[in-house]
Amino acid sequence: MNHPAQLAALKKPLPESLLAALKSLFGERCSTSEAMRQHHGRDESSYDPMLPDAVVFAQSTEEVSDAVKLCAAHDVPVIPYGAGTSLEGHILALRGGVSIDLSQMNSIIAVHPEDLTVTVQPGVTRKQLNTEIRDTGLFFPIDPGADASLGGMAATRASGTNAVRYGTMRENTLALTVVMADGRVIRTGTRARKSSAGYDLTRVFVGSEGTLGIITEVTVRLYPQPEAVSAAVCSFPTPGDAVRAVIQTIQMGVPIARVEFLDEQGVKAINAYDKLTLPEQPLLLFEFHGTEHGVQEQAETVQEIVAEHNATGFEWATRPEDRSRLWGARHNAYFALLQLRPGARAISTDCCVPISRLAECILDTKADCEHHDMVYSIIGHVGDGNFHVQMLVDPNDPADIAKAEGVNARMVTRALAMDGTCTGEHGVGMHKMDFLVQEHGDGAIEAMRALKHAFDPRNILNPGKIVQW
Amino acid sequence: MNHPAQLAALKKPLPESLLAALKSLFGERCSTSEAMRQHHGRDESSYDPMLPDAVVFAQSTEEVSDAVKLCAAHDVPVIPYGAGTSLEGHILALRGGVSIDLSQMNSIIAVHPEDLTVTVQPGVTRKQLNTEIRDTGLFFPIDPGADASLGGMAATRASGTNAVRYGTMRENTLALTVVMADGRVIRTGTRARKSSAGYDLTRVFVGSEGTLGIITEVTVRLYPQPEAVSAAVCSFPTPGDAVRAVIQTIQMGVPIARVEFLDEQGVKAINAYDKLTLPEQPLLLFEFHGTEHGVQEQAETVQEIVAEHNATGFEWATRPEDRSRLWGARHNAYFALLQLRPGARAISTDCCVPISRLAECILDTKADCEHHDMVYSIIGHVGDGNFHVQMLVDPNDPADIAKAEGVNARMVTRALAMDGTCTGEHGVGMHKMDFLVQEHGDGAIEAMRALKHAFDPRNILNPGKIVQW
Repeated sequence: MNHPAQLAALKKPLPESLLAALKSLFGERCSTSEAMRQHHGRDESSYDPMLPDAVVFAQSTEEVSDAVKLCAAHDVPVIPYGAGTSLEGHILALRGGVSIDLSQMNSIIAVHPEDLTVTVQPGVTRKQLNTEIRDTGLFFPIDPGADASLGGMAATRASGTNAVRYGTMRENTLALTVVMADGRVIRTGTRARKSSAGYDLTRVFVGSEGTLGIITEVTVRLYPQPEAVSAAVCSFPTPGDAVRAVIQTIQMGVPIARVEFLDEQGVKAINAYDKLTLPEQPLLLFEFHGTEHGVQEQAETVQEIVAEHNATGFEWATRPEDRSRLWGARHNAYFALLQLRPGARAISTDCCVPISRLAECILDTKADCEHHDMVYSIIGHVGDGNFHVQMLVDPNDPADIAKAEGVNARMVTRALAMDGTCTGEHGVGMHKMDFLVQEHGDGAIEAMRALKHAFDPRNILNPGKIVQW
Repeated sequence: MNHPAQLAALKKPLPESLLAALKSLFGERCSTSEAMRQHHGRDESSYDPMLPDAVVFAQSTEEVSDAVKLCAAHDVPVIPYGAGTSLEGHILALRGGVSIDLSQMNSIIAVHPEDLTVTVQPGVTRKQLNTEIRDTGLFFPIDPGADASLGGMAATRASGTNAVRYGTMRENTLALTVVMADGRVIRTGTRARKSSAGYDLTRVFVGSEGTLGIITEVTVRLYPQPEAVSAAVCSFPTPGDAVRAVIQTIQMGVPIARVEFLDEQGVKAINAYDKLTLPEQPLLLFEFHGTEHGVQEQAETVQEIVAEHNATGFEWATRPEDRSRLWGARHNAYFALLQLRPGARAISTDCCVPISRLAECILDTKADCEHHDMVYSIIGHVGDGNFHVQMLVDPNDPADIAKAEGVNARMVTRALAMDGTCTGEHGVGMHKMDFLVQEHGDGAIEAMRALKHAFDPRNILNPGKIVQW
């Protein structure tokens, strides 16, 4: 892991001339207030904030380019800021510098319903996008829980509950506009659904967490709203039963749109938070998209599968309000869990394994949590083999934090031994840099570093994240 | 375009010491015979061969690494060779050097049916793969027509008829083993279905055409064989009717597995070649995958849509032998077409546009072909907005070739003006380098060049392809 104190030692004061230039360019949209810097120096991880020296609110690609050019001329770090919902310390200003807030770049640039594509500015959030395109009959499926910005989602290679059916930002991003480290503006693709035209720059930037360039436009795929949607919920005597039911569902190729696992503690938390009365046992929450008959057929197949795995209380939720209540509760799980230990902070882990190893990985991780008396819950996008352990820790107790980090480290090691990955969807940020090396090995890390050096030769783009310089 | 004569001037004779070292390493699997060099100095493009100085047949990642290390030490180009089915001059040895033939690396390393993944050596062909995994109940969908090798398909970001449903090599490659320009071996991913773990090296190499590294293992996703498959064929009075029917099918979100367009000339060619009696009019060939009922439902929806677009002769092919006959004919279209003008060579074009512009792009291109009296056919994976014009030219008539290149250039310009791409699936090779610049602009090309320089600082990996050094 990075050592924040060590890195902060590299921090230089912001040159007066740069600040003057930024103020002249951005006027009141350039701030150095403590409150503003605090707000931009943290994400939803458990890290203490590390503040940028200044924050500018960009309103166009040109402004981002101008800000980057100024910072480049002064060798000052720039850190793009979307909605601040990242979880691994992605946007902390390790070496100070300028946070470029993109939230005011929140226009939908062009919807092409006939092509199932939309181009947006990076500050557009996923909920905003779906609200604005609702009457086209299309929707954008990727749903990481938080109301993240599309620019941030692309930068983190986000996914979430729908990925099992619709893929992640990796599969759904068609093109990006990117401001490079020297302020040049490039476009990485077209609106064609597929292309073999040279190196895949779009996917070089998707998941690059602001370290290779700053994303200022995002073109993504949209999907027709399904003719029919239904949800189902059922409970299991053990987490192993639940996960094995999912494995079989995936192996049979049932095209489920979502399948979420919550362990007993997760169910307890959302029951309390959302005033629900779900049985306090491991639970699966399914969603089916398709034609009326197709949805019914999928649900029947799944009902047979879960029955073989000792499911009880299989219940339908075909009415939109019932579905919204269940999925709303699922999305609140993080906040619901925080209520279980007042004053605590959550450390959220993230790993993804080949589906056949999922039950084993979850059960071993659960045993480790129990062994260390953690207050925790396991939830997961289990159709992809992806799950999270949320652990509640006392932020003022280093021993408590160390215990949680131990669980996390062992979980990652376990996932890697199963040919899985140290992060399914949260990204690397500061927190997973050592795990990244463990996963990829020195050779591949060297290739990543070569890429970073080629695209950002002066290391000003969100420095200290993903790979060590 | 590159000027082969100019590039060939850079060619140096192969150092004797290198040849001796390769012979000592590969024994009889190192050849400098004229016939062997001829075979490895051409692909299925209309380019004249440009020969490597030597060919080695590698049998392991270590051997590839050893060969690359030797060539690197002598600053000699290395060109990976799979099945030789590329179409844009990908494997021509512009500056001579060593062709590393990977066809003997044709083992399936590990099938994980329970995870729907398989890891293969790069010389495994797609047909071989499907034959070897047949009894797992799974299949590998990507089907570029030719029986290409998996390594070559990854290197070219191949796709084909099934991409509309299952995606391309971009979406289906989970991990690669790659020999880098200095002989180091890296692995770019894991078998997890999704990951946010750092820069997406897998997709850096997918589509890099041997210019950034040599792929020596490929892990791809597999899919359960569908419970039911059916095909349908119908004819249209005009190509515009056919394409508009496809556009509507896609916009409605019908999950078709394949939809192929053949123009009148294409149908004539396959009728003659495959002894079929299809009406000699523009034609669509559909395939549906799903449950018994789902397939029927899709086909009924499609039947309604095509009827609105003046389709005639809608016919089912539910029996496997009838489906095979139709799809076999489609796959033979390239060879069938060659029979239309004996002694001719085919120039195959490739572009992809947003689906709403597809009819216009095809019709304008068709008009251009007619205007220039080309012997041609248009076929396409129209569900993706991707199509090909195959033009038959006299290889000894420069004027004829120039005429075809003119049609191609105008088609690409047209596609780019529609926010499409200069190549949907064939790749860049030598032939599309200028079009690549036209598509991406100098800034993005500069980023691609930075990537090439970072990964291959001495320009020994398949030099002269994708981007100018």
